[in-house]
Amino acid sequence: MFAPVYLDHNATTPLSEAVREAMLPWFGERFGNASSRHEYGRSARQAIDEARARVAAAVNAHPTEVIFTSGGSEANNLFLKGAAALLKPGRLAVSAIEHPCVREPARQLQRSGWQRQEIPVDGNGRINIDAFRQILAEAPALVSVMLANNETGVLQDIPALAAEVRVARGWMHCDAVQALGKVAVDFRSLAVHGLTLSSHKLGGPIGAGALVLDKRVELAPLVAGGGQERNLRSGTENVMAIVGFGVACEQAAVGLAERAGRLEALRLHLEEGLSALGAQIFSASAPRLPNTSFFGLAGIDGETLVAKLDRAGYAVASGSACSSANPEPSHTLLAMGVEPELARSAVRVSLGAGNTRQDVDGFLAALGENLAKLRTLTAIAV
Amino acid sequence: MFAPVYLDHNATTPLSEAVREAMLPWFGERFGNASSRHEYGRSARQAIDEARARVAAAVNAHPTEVIFTSGGSEANNLFLKGAAALLKPGRLAVSAIEHPCVREPARQLQRSGWQRQEIPVDGNGRINIDAFRQILAEAPALVSVMLANNETGVLQDIPALAAEVRVARGWMHCDAVQALGKVAVDFRSLAVHGLTLSSHKLGGPIGAGALVLDKRVELAPLVAGGGQERNLRSGTENVMAIVGFGVACEQAAVGLAERAGRLEALRLHLEEGLSALGAQIFSASAPRLPNTSFFGLAGIDGETLVAKLDRAGYAVASGSACSSANPEPSHTLLAMGVEPELARSAVRVSLGAGNTRQDVDGFLAALGENLAKLRTLTAIAV
Ligand SMILES: Cc1ncc(COP(=O)(O)O)c(C=O)c1O
Ligand SMILES: Cc1ncc(COP(=O)(O)O)c(C=O)c1O
Repeated sequence: MFAPVYLDHNATTPLSEAVREAMLPWFGERFGNASSRHEYGRSARQAIDEARARVAAAVNAHPTEVIFTSGGSEANNLFLKGAAALLKPGRLAVSAIEHPCVREPARQLQRSGWQRQEIPVDGNGRINIDAFRQILAEAPALVSVMLANNETGVLQDIPALAAEVRVARGWMHCDAVQALGKVAVDFRSLAVHGLTLSSHKLGGPIGAGALVLDKRVELAPLVAGGGQERNLRSGTENVMAIVGFGVACEQAAVGLAERAGRLEALRLHLEEGLSALGAQIFSASAPRLPNTSFFGLAGIDGETLVAKLDRAGYAVASGSACSSANPEPSHTLLAMGVEPELARSAVRVSLGAGNTRQDVDGFLAALGENLAKLRTLTAIAV
Repeated sequence: MFAPVYLDHNATTPLSEAVREAMLPWFGERFGNASSRHEYGRSARQAIDEARARVAAAVNAHPTEVIFTSGGSEANNLFLKGAAALLKPGRLAVSAIEHPCVREPARQLQRSGWQRQEIPVDGNGRINIDAFRQILAEAPALVSVMLANNETGVLQDIPALAAEVRVARGWMHCDAVQALGKVAVDFRSLAVHGLTLSSHKLGGPIGAGALVLDKRVELAPLVAGGGQERNLRSGTENVMAIVGFGVACEQAAVGLAERAGRLEALRLHLEEGLSALGAQIFSASAPRLPNTSFFGLAGIDGETLVAKLDRAGYAVASGSACSSANPEPSHTLLAMGVEPELARSAVRVSLGAGNTRQDVDGFLAALGENLAKLRTLTAIAV
């Protein structure tokens, strides 16, 4: 297989070596339904318990607060719809830059009688605090704001926002899928009622995620049945994926600051080069993930550019991976007040632990070449 | 690890060699988010398309009818709650012997205004056709009857039942999780509106399942978000598990009749031995899965016996794996009119392609020994 340089770690990540090793036994001699009461079942149950302890430790939660799901999308849906199912329809507020797997369940709830409000963001993509307080004044029962945005990488001050939601007596949910493994994520100091995690964004396998849940919140299960995961998520547990998720969480905590520092230096180097090529870096002055750079290039079509870079050997994204079947410009950028024209030119580079300065320099060279060609074409067409 | 003889294939199965080989590349050099528009993403998308074609072919469906989920429990919940969400609350009928992942969503729907009816079964665990017709006379909008029961292995005449549901203008759902790979499963001739499949019951990995869906049925997604799976199941696709599921389906179709014949012969041999030990085989005279034997042993506690057999090196189940955290006797047996006392003694042996006559003989010997000991103890205690 032709293997381009992978610069799209916010979409998904390769398995880390330690994760692969931990998962491999479950490919062969080890297997079993964790509910079975024999050696195979007990062994599977024990592996899940160990993984649960690892995930909990990574976010400073108690193992009994961790509910395993099939991934981040399911965990977000579980919190919002699961909590709403046991409340009288009321108000629900989600930020304007949430991932579709928060936005869409919020829309589903709106259709079933909830009043949905969108919390606006400023030009940097940070929560507009005045608007946030106005929304809280109407006492929403459910609030959801993500810790790190998947496109811009912008970080929100969740502890402060959550404190205000608690005063307003709402449940505060936070999607930390893009934050885990890149910045510190602490369930106690975030002090939210529900926290969403996903394995495949930090070197773990696709197929496992978690909702870390404050015990005071009651949820109706989305997947009801055999009663697994404290009756909040039924279905035979995906042992192999959960084991990998656990190890990925453990690994992510090791040397986090050092890794983040290295990635940030690499990103700064990238962004110097991008600016020299005329790129406008979104959310440049806001606190951001160390690995993520989202930028616009006036007059260029982002989709076309991404296709050309792919052929040149560099895998990057034009928008959020999950909605890239959708040709609309990024809702995150539109919410920030970016012109649709510029939003349509957006490209995202998201670095991973394996990326080098050479990868970045090569990418910048390929970008420069392709930009020159595209700009010549545009000039001719005009 | 101490490796007992595995006789619990209805709980979960080891990965088949072909499945393992197909999955392994996704452990290393291949990875990617199938929504990404670069080489890694396209490669993942192609692998999913191939798997979808394989799953569809295995059940004589069209690939566009296959919706991948995280497993059987999710697919059952998706059909029942997804369809109900877009209908006015009405009547819903599920058989008395369904798996908890059909029974529980039905109960959730009852709490949200649906009228839930349980379709009774006869002493063999087969649908009571007169009662079924009486229930249909009240025009339920949704009906769910499983093809093969996970405990007794009893098969239902789904084509006949589905035909009556169509006349009554309801949607007919069928859980075929335990049937796939053991008997022929044909979406067209079953002629149901929704069919549930699960990968890990037929040599595929845990983490993938499918709802095969008639396009006329509209569903609200349980997991809403990025719009994957025709907007019916969002979330980054679990490529590795889906690839394994596809190959497991393909393999299951190869030599099905021959394999089923061999397993049935093995089961008959087992049941001769069981009868000699005084066991009563449930559903003995009904059409059943070739691999499954569920039996009672008067005066014995099934849980205790299973624990002793485990120590003797034989992994079997005392009840449905998914509800074995639950000490209640099997609801399937109670629905069949079996005395709770006898139901509590029930043990299930479910054979797999790897089992041999030697495994069965060894199991019968271990059972005989342990029964003798337990009966002596009981005799002394009396
Ligand atoms: C911010 C955010 N939330 C949730 C998700 C969904 O996670 P998953 O792919 O595990 O369903 C993603 C990734 O696609 C994401 O970037
Ligand atoms: C009949 C039946 N339906 C559904 C399921 C659930 O499938 P899964 O474990 O893939 O969620 C099972 C197995 O546990 C089953 O036996």
